[in-house]
Amino acid sequence: MKRRDFFRNTSVAALTASILSPFELLALGKGNRIKANGRTAKNIIFMVSDGMSIGTLTMAGLMLERKEGRKSNWLKLYERQENVRRALMDTASASSLVTDSAAASSSWGCGFRVNNGSLNVSPDGTLHKPILQKFKAAGKSVGCVTSVPVTHATPAGFCINNNKRGDQGEIALQYLPLKFDVMLGGGEEFFSADKRKDKQDVFGMFARDGYHVIRTRNELQQTGPGAAQPVLGVFHEAGLPYELDRQQDKSLMERVPSLAEMTAQAISILKKNSKGFVMQVEGGKVDWAAHANDAAALIYDQIAFDDAVKVALDFAEKDKETLVIITTDHGNANPGLFSGDDASANFDKLQRFKHTNDWVLRNINSSFTASSVKELIEAAQGIVITNEEASSLLQHFAGKDESGIYNPEKLPFRELAYIQKRYTNIGWGSMDHSGDYVELAMAGPGSELLKPFVKNIELHYLMLAAAGVGKS
Amino acid sequence: MKRRDFFRNTSVAALTASILSPFELLALGKGNRIKANGRTAKNIIFMVSDGMSIGTLTMAGLMLERKEGRKSNWLKLYERQENVRRALMDTASASSLVTDSAAASSSWGCGFRVNNGSLNVSPDGTLHKPILQKFKAAGKSVGCVTSVPVTHATPAGFCINNNKRGDQGEIALQYLPLKFDVMLGGGEEFFSADKRKDKQDVFGMFARDGYHVIRTRNELQQTGPGAAQPVLGVFHEAGLPYELDRQQDKSLMERVPSLAEMTAQAISILKKNSKGFVMQVEGGKVDWAAHANDAAALIYDQIAFDDAVKVALDFAEKDKETLVIITTDHGNANPGLFSGDDASANFDKLQRFKHTNDWVLRNINSSFTASSVKELIEAAQGIVITNEEASSLLQHFAGKDESGIYNPEKLPFRELAYIQKRYTNIGWGSMDHSGDYVELAMAGPGSELLKPFVKNIELHYLMLAAAGVGKS
Repeated sequence: MKRRDFFRNTSVAALTASILSPFELLALGKGNRIKANGRTAKNIIFMVSDGMSIGTLTMAGLMLERKEGRKSNWLKLYERQENVRRALMDTASASSLVTDSAAASSSWGCGFRVNNGSLNVSPDGTLHKPILQKFKAAGKSVGCVTSVPVTHATPAGFCINNNKRGDQGEIALQYLPLKFDVMLGGGEEFFSADKRKDKQDVFGMFARDGYHVIRTRNELQQTGPGAAQPVLGVFHEAGLPYELDRQQDKSLMERVPSLAEMTAQAISILKKNSKGFVMQVEGGKVDWAAHANDAAALIYDQIAFDDAVKVALDFAEKDKETLVIITTDHGNANPGLFSGDDASANFDKLQRFKHTNDWVLRNINSSFTASSVKELIEAAQGIVITNEEASSLLQHFAGKDESGIYNPEKLPFRELAYIQKRYTNIGWGSMDHSGDYVELAMAGPGSELLKPFVKNIELHYLMLAAAGVGKS
Repeated sequence: MKRRDFFRNTSVAALTASILSPFELLALGKGNRIKANGRTAKNIIFMVSDGMSIGTLTMAGLMLERKEGRKSNWLKLYERQENVRRALMDTASASSLVTDSAAASSSWGCGFRVNNGSLNVSPDGTLHKPILQKFKAAGKSVGCVTSVPVTHATPAGFCINNNKRGDQGEIALQYLPLKFDVMLGGGEEFFSADKRKDKQDVFGMFARDGYHVIRTRNELQQTGPGAAQPVLGVFHEAGLPYELDRQQDKSLMERVPSLAEMTAQAISILKKNSKGFVMQVEGGKVDWAAHANDAAALIYDQIAFDDAVKVALDFAEKDKETLVIITTDHGNANPGLFSGDDASANFDKLQRFKHTNDWVLRNINSSFTASSVKELIEAAQGIVITNEEASSLLQHFAGKDESGIYNPEKLPFRELAYIQKRYTNIGWGSMDHSGDYVELAMAGPGSELLKPFVKNIELHYLMLAAAGVGKS
């Protein structure tokens, strides 16, 4: 889409949908009913662990039970029976039974199924007004927090229209006029003059437009309720580092906040608005870890997401007017802890991992021998692989024979996961998204609207209804 | 365990547990509460799709929507929001985070986690009274229906104590004195004098003990409410044929009933008892299909299970005093429909399959060439594989280089699934069970006791409480 076309098409008039779908009618009807019951949600926190197969939720839960003797916050919520609703969600897109993150976020973002790759643009070209624009127009504060670029598909699906999710340089520019209250994540290559293809200083454009632009964890922590708004926080190029690697690196710890920290700061800023707020929180690197079949990256980033879940639930519990939605957009790679003589002991090895496979493979270079590969993996992950396995990994490393959506360097993620399965019992069905029905939980006002089986698009109307906000 | 020891240990006195667990106290307390509310479950139908990962439930659901334009019965239940409760279930055993079917069924069967391979025998040797013995002692009719041997782990876990699930010849003898009202499934090699290692005529022993022994679908259909009891129905050696293959074979259709037909007949017999009944229905070959990474076997047997779900729910809806529990004992192989350009169209190819991979591989013999392998697969499944793929399959066939729990002939199931993934987009993480949390649904009296997250053992106490039956 050319930008000029885009701006013409996204005029407010064009964004007003011309028909009322059955879902919209239903939602509006239910919205009235909720209001009548006095259960309007003032705030909504929509939490997405991107690409979370049920095995991901399971392994993070088992890890916390065995390592820390506690349940995950997601599962703790399920112990409070009266306050939680659950559903299975069908995640298909307009173009496939297996969605991508753009179509998935759009389904929630606009209430229509769009083709994979599109952001709130229907197959016939119709643009649908994204949900945070609707809530902003209704007077609420809005924002997004993510561990991948703020311009990535999942946050973008709540914010803008674009039929090319990959055009993140343009998406950064589309954010500028929205004046959304808090946008936090990675993706500095889409804002920095040094790194953008067109050399525009987009950080500067945001600053001149009145945004408070922050770049470090320290600056984020100083951005309390009293700070200027709107806030754009971009803490890293591409995605933020995996949480396990971040915790091992002092420099990263200084510069980059955790997902839970970003969530807490975002809430503290957004909650100032007496009309309430709506925000999306994405554990985006859970999806990247699944694409890489990187078990430690996956499990520890799912736990980082779970820490952010706690921040949201703690706020909601005190606030009493906040609907918290916790889900994923689709499965990815369908990992599992699989049976074998030592499944439990092998799973427990993950507790001693200091680094992800991503970190391991990025630290191998052409000077490495099989022996030094073995040493690196033992130091990083406590596992002693065989000489044959180390040689095979080196061969794949040299051959650059792997590809993958987040693997431009063609690192041998698949081969390392295959080797690791012998030691951890964790297997993978693919390096891609799956069409599995996914887990969805809600707590707070409006959660009573959730049916036990839903299509992803239904959440759009449910959120509007829960907040008592009609079409705009 | 020697049989003599076994019979000594299973005396009624020995079976009475010596301690009251917190779960038991809870269950008994809740049982009283339910009775006070007048919501006692007179009947319980416990339905297990064995080894059903969430991808299995999903693909069966998607298949029915696309092929027949309807939802699965399992998912239709979720549309009736008021009448259904759902949970995630933790399926671990005493010995592993990844259970086998014996320990899984025992967790429900006796309320304790036992080691993999054991049936209601704790790691310290304690025998726990199986749940159908408890319900039988309380005056109810009881039974099991399965698509695998009636002596297999999942039915056995509701019926008997044995620390070796594999000793199915002994398990058949253990069933004899129980006089359970209906036992239907496969496994004639454990009853027939011709096929038993000890040459005992166990069918004859059951007949002499007053059982009505039936061997064909026709005999089953004539076994109505008026027939003699108890009923032992054994329709095939080992497991029953996969449903897809059965439907293509006139002789199998004459001899072997479907899971839904067995379920309907069992209910018609069991419901005669004014004190009610408790039965288990197992879609056991779903698990075998997952172990073989056999997509068509898996999906069509899940649909056959879903047909049985309809029988149970239809009965319960009229009856109003029946608790229906629908779940699985553990994940298996974590299959998924994975993304790719043609994921939806490739998935739709499964609609044209006439036969499972099991049937295909059993029909290949040493006279086959790559060309005849290609022809066979095209005729059976409508897919044209390449010459290289056919040659590779033949090589694995000749090499007998695969093993697996239900693969004594060492057929190349893994290789065929690997080849098929290119054509169907269905991938597999393993050929073994997974530790995934699993889907669980309940409808009817007692379902209000279900919490959103449960351990498998909790179901034992929930069933007793729902029916108002204490320890015995």
